[in-house]
Amino acid sequence: MKAAQVIRPKKPLEVRTVKTPVPKERQVLVEIESAGVCHSDIHVWEGGYEGSKGEIMKVEERGVKFPLTLGHEIAGTVESMGGGVKNIKKGERVIVYPWIGDGVCPACRVGDEHICDNPRSLGIFRNGGYAEMVLVPDEKYLVKIHDLDANVVSSLACSGLTAYTAVKNANPSPKQNMIIIGAGGLGLMAIQLARALFNPNITVIDIEDQRIRQAKKLGADHGINSISVDAVKQIKDLTNNLGADCILDFVNSPKTVEPALNMLRKRGKLVLVGLFGGSVDLNLPLLPLRSQTIIGSYTGRLADLPDLVDLVKRKAINPVISKTFKLSQAHDALVQLKAGKIIGRAIINPKKK
Amino acid sequence: MKAAQVIRPKKPLEVRTVKTPVPKERQVLVEIESAGVCHSDIHVWEGGYEGSKGEIMKVEERGVKFPLTLGHEIAGTVESMGGGVKNIKKGERVIVYPWIGDGVCPACRVGDEHICDNPRSLGIFRNGGYAEMVLVPDEKYLVKIHDLDANVVSSLACSGLTAYTAVKNANPSPKQNMIIIGAGGLGLMAIQLARALFNPNITVIDIEDQRIRQAKKLGADHGINSISVDAVKQIKDLTNNLGADCILDFVNSPKTVEPALNMLRKRGKLVLVGLFGGSVDLNLPLLPLRSQTIIGSYTGRLADLPDLVDLVKRKAINPVISKTFKLSQAHDALVQLKAGKIIGRAIINPKKK
Amino acid sequence: MKAAQVIRPKKPLEVRTVKTPVPKERQVLVEIESAGVCHSDIHVWEGGYEGSKGEIMKVEERGVKFPLTLGHEIAGTVESMGGGVKNIKKGERVIVYPWIGDGVCPACRVGDEHICDNPRSLGIFRNGGYAEMVLVPDEKYLVKIHDLDANVVSSLACSGLTAYTAVKNANPSPKQNMIIIGAGGLGLMAIQLARALFNPNITVIDIEDQRIRQAKKLGADHGINSISVDAVKQIKDLTNNLGADCILDFVNSPKTVEPALNMLRKRGKLVLVGLFGGSVDLNLPLLPLRSQTIIGSYTGRLADLPDLVDLVKRKAINPVISKTFKLSQAHDALVQLKAGKIIGRAIINPKKK
Amino acid sequence: MKAAQVIRPKKPLEVRTVKTPVPKERQVLVEIESAGVCHSDIHVWEGGYEGSKGEIMKVEERGVKFPLTLGHEIAGTVESMGGGVKNIKKGERVIVYPWIGDGVCPACRVGDEHICDNPRSLGIFRNGGYAEMVLVPDEKYLVKIHDLDANVVSSLACSGLTAYTAVKNANPSPKQNMIIIGAGGLGLMAIQLARALFNPNITVIDIEDQRIRQAKKLGADHGINSISVDAVKQIKDLTNNLGADCILDFVNSPKTVEPALNMLRKRGKLVLVGLFGGSVDLNLPLLPLRSQTIIGSYTGRLADLPDLVDLVKRKAINPVISKTFKLSQAHDALVQLKAGKIIGRAIINPKKK
Repeated sequence: MKAAQVIRPKKPLEVRTVKTPVPKERQVLVEIESAGVCHSDIHVWEGGYEGSKGEIMKVEERGVKFPLTLGHEIAGTVESMGGGVKNIKKGERVIVYPWIGDGVCPACRVGDEHICDNPRSLGIFRNGGYAEMVLVPDEKYLVKIHDLDANVVSSLACSGLTAYTAVKNANPSPKQNMIIIGAGGLGLMAIQLARALFNPNITVIDIEDQRIRQAKKLGADHGINSISVDAVKQIKDLTNNLGADCILDFVNSPKTVEPALNMLRKRGKLVLVGLFGGSVDLNLPLLPLRSQTIIGSYTGRLADLPDLVDLVKRKAINPVISKTFKLSQAHDALVQLKAGKIIGRAIINPKKK
Repeated sequence: MKAAQVIRPKKPLEVRTVKTPVPKERQVLVEIESAGVCHSDIHVWEGGYEGSKGEIMKVEERGVKFPLTLGHEIAGTVESMGGGVKNIKKGERVIVYPWIGDGVCPACRVGDEHICDNPRSLGIFRNGGYAEMVLVPDEKYLVKIHDLDANVVSSLACSGLTAYTAVKNANPSPKQNMIIIGAGGLGLMAIQLARALFNPNITVIDIEDQRIRQAKKLGADHGINSISVDAVKQIKDLTNNLGADCILDFVNSPKTVEPALNMLRKRGKLVLVGLFGGSVDLNLPLLPLRSQTIIGSYTGRLADLPDLVDLVKRKAINPVISKTFKLSQAHDALVQLKAGKIIGRAIINPKKK
Repeated sequence: MKAAQVIRPKKPLEVRTVKTPVPKERQVLVEIESAGVCHSDIHVWEGGYEGSKGEIMKVEERGVKFPLTLGHEIAGTVESMGGGVKNIKKGERVIVYPWIGDGVCPACRVGDEHICDNPRSLGIFRNGGYAEMVLVPDEKYLVKIHDLDANVVSSLACSGLTAYTAVKNANPSPKQNMIIIGAGGLGLMAIQLARALFNPNITVIDIEDQRIRQAKKLGADHGINSISVDAVKQIKDLTNNLGADCILDFVNSPKTVEPALNMLRKRGKLVLVGLFGGSVDLNLPLLPLRSQTIIGSYTGRLADLPDLVDLVKRKAINPVISKTFKLSQAHDALVQLKAGKIIGRAIINPKKK
Repeated sequence: MKAAQVIRPKKPLEVRTVKTPVPKERQVLVEIESAGVCHSDIHVWEGGYEGSKGEIMKVEERGVKFPLTLGHEIAGTVESMGGGVKNIKKGERVIVYPWIGDGVCPACRVGDEHICDNPRSLGIFRNGGYAEMVLVPDEKYLVKIHDLDANVVSSLACSGLTAYTAVKNANPSPKQNMIIIGAGGLGLMAIQLARALFNPNITVIDIEDQRIRQAKKLGADHGINSISVDAVKQIKDLTNNLGADCILDFVNSPKTVEPALNMLRKRGKLVLVGLFGGSVDLNLPLLPLRSQTIIGSYTGRLADLPDLVDLVKRKAINPVISKTFKLSQAHDALVQLKAGKIIGRAIINPKKK
């Protein structure tokens, strides 16, 4: 089968012919219809994240091995399976949960495999979805999607789960003010989920008017372009000078976290999601004096994926697809995402010729 | 009546004769037996907290007015009351909840008056317990102590509640590793509460062997003197290189928070309680990548005070009293506390001649 | 001022001229624009609830005293106030929280005054809203409604809070199946709140097609008329034979609870809200074997009322008003409600001539 | 290998020679040191539970098949394993989590396999621990016990987890009153866990003075023999006429649940654990009027087993062992348990000759 692989960090992805895996026991082979292209794919392809001092935190030190087939937002059709599979059949259409753990750490034992002590995620530690097929290590990681559009649901496995976990970590009540920083794929999904499941007062902050307009169309009550106005002042004005009850930062750079800390209410929660990099100077006594909490939020758990699929089915949320690519264009998709040219989600369709 | 007051920041406290308040409606006048001397009294007396850049965050800008009678850890006997009081009688012995709110903010509405948007706390925004009498604005702020020792229970109102809230914020399961940084009055209380109510594996870190010995006597499993050994390495060794599940920092200075972040487990919680001051450089992508949470924790709610009184009554916890002072020695008590000469709690006994 | 009072149980309400209260301290006098007519007003007027054996649980034994001005769903305008009031002004429009507690019991201490050990609720233990004015014992019980329609918001204080608490007790995830039994004022509000804040799959069960149609218009996915079909079988069919994840019973009679227990999923929650009366035979080993929970749910807390007002303001929910009455028609309103002629809410407008 | 099996319900267990299983993939074969004898073994051996009308709810209708090797409280030594096992070695001593689920239902996805929709538990749906060896379907179900006494820890897998879940469902605060009904193996464990992890005021109710004495030795504050005194009256006296905050009923028969409902406080929780059988007449309006909750509680989750092992290791709890039996005496052990002759736990030691 064909797979678009990172051979070495920062080098163009190569489409190679690799051996098609043969599933055994509870394993399932899925023929891929859609594979989302995620910001974290860029970090893996570049070989690392920028740390607090501008140094690079190398993914190879965290256990990533090249060559690697990227792609952890995968939807497709069951092609074959091992003898221990009982709940799924060939031909059923599925989305794949990619955040696979070791099964024995404390997090895995309560179903939080995405924050396992020894992660084995697809598209990061094992081959993923920029390919014609993917081997899923257990039928339990599959959620049926019936006749839903694979392009639409595929991003639920990462951007959907990440936004869902972030919104649940913020847990706003209806009267509270929630700020969403960054109206990219994650931010737009978070706005829709917050609207569908918590219904707070939502303000989006971004640096591009076009994204802000889309955010308001999808449910934001207010939009602030932080280039043209002083966002901290605007939020203070909007909140009777108290600040926001919760802030979801989908960028998470010094340029966003510093103002976020200044617009956070007493008792407020700051949820950090993005992996842009960098550091801020944290005023220590202010946190207890103001009873504030800072929460690092990372993707989401398997049990939440059926919720997201059901919400799409009932049109309560609608993941934004911006552009589709052939497998041979995988590198191009990454490059366009990095250049900020994608609103919503880029999708690779490996069966498209 | 007599009261030991701060006339101006940093000037010695003066014992003055002031007008005895007359309670009306639901107000209660309490004759004070014991008033605890708390670290935050030092901050108010000094006029401010040190911020992230060494600048002073003045308490007068937060609403404190001088002259002020310090003291928010108050136990005594009901002396008189207004006509609307129904549940308490003259002569009953009580501890006073000092963290009084405005009653109408979102926090007050769920009983979290200690983190009210417009606090009116006794000993900070209103006259407190370094005096012969204190006026309590509503009978609801009183918890009966029957025949318990006022010296022992008085500190429950601040150091007890603060430790209780911090431990509940950490919420460890029995198999988890909890680190307590700082074995002063707060840390020793936290160790006892963690042992009595959660029973995790507890390690205390301090810089004085004497405090560490006392911590172990009160329930810590392990003690680390961070001057003589590398605490981060010790914790890593103790936790199979994973780090601690939760850390309660009762100092909260750069010298404690920096190592704390390095000994925190993936999915771990760092609870910041102390008000020592300063700042740290916070690595932004690490928080989501490691799903960690930083929680600012401040005193505690009224509903938790009866729990603490009951635990003392059943000897499940035992607040450590180190020394008692006369009202005329109030300034001396503050000075000794600041100099680090108090293990456990200093107490002022205004009736002692 | 004029007030429609119950003089003796079951006798027609009388409109009497009573003394206008004078507010002092933190008390507030509110001129009433709208007072909702609630099912529990019928129980108070009749003098009791039917217990498990058909016996009457008399409200006078629970502390109700006649003559009594009914009415606990009150919206109006601030008329005057005591000297201790700081956060509200004459002329401001408000909704009144009626579930007033003693302020000192464990429930009151965490803001759950509605389930106080010694309740003093307006319209039940103190005079309520079937009158030109009502005395509110503390400014904290008022929530500002600005220019919202008093007829629309008044029912939030009881039917709104009751539905909100019930839905939060069920706490469904989006993929779960929630059953609402009874599409009266409470049921219709619960459907809207469940849709706005949790977004599960909602099925309504009632015995009148008209109510079911309205329920579907307001957000129910499915409707079952339990007279014409076997509701248990329908729910089993709908849920792959597993049963419903949560059931909210706004009737709570043997005729609804017996089938509810038969359509409840393993791990399911049955939330009992209605006060119709009667008893069921509860199979004891089934509850642990199926890990099921039965939750008694009663009105709601003060802190949740601003949420509901905000949701109405943003049109996320829309309380259904069926009919308005003059103060002189108060008895007629009760009679029509009892006869099942009201869909949504009947409202008394005391200022209407 | 040898196994003590139920051939047909109610017939004496037979010790038979059966084929020793061969583990593959992630399966592990454990040589059994200790197997606890549990009350629910009696129900399986008898072929059913008594329902609400005295009818029998047959275990065969729930999927149990005979012949069956009973025993779900298993501790022993790893004998061999399949090729996919990575975290455990031959010779390591372990306790086995027996509540195995299908891995794909909503409960399994959050680590609650004990309440799976399609349970496959050892000793109930698959062969269990009354044998020389047991086949464990995945290494993840093993928790290391190092050099702990197998007789002491084996009961943690059922009676320990059941008591732990029940106590957590009650979730008492320190000042609350908790009632434990039934001081058998489960009740005694619950008392110790409540004391070690929540520290409420604990009252035990039983019908034998000897059990009550042991309960008080293990941490109960008060003991009531409900044959000699009126337990409801005693609890009312003890609680200022308010009733108990939470009640754990480890019998769960009409004779215990009826008084339990009468001694439950407003806002109280009644946790039903026992499988004695029968039914009660449930007064429907009382539940919402008193905001009470009835919780069915069944065994416990895998993630909690390491907590219990750790608590035993630190001597914070101490499971009570009353008597050990050889494998050939398995039937005798069941009979003695049924006759009420066992205080604490009976244990089978298959290696004992």
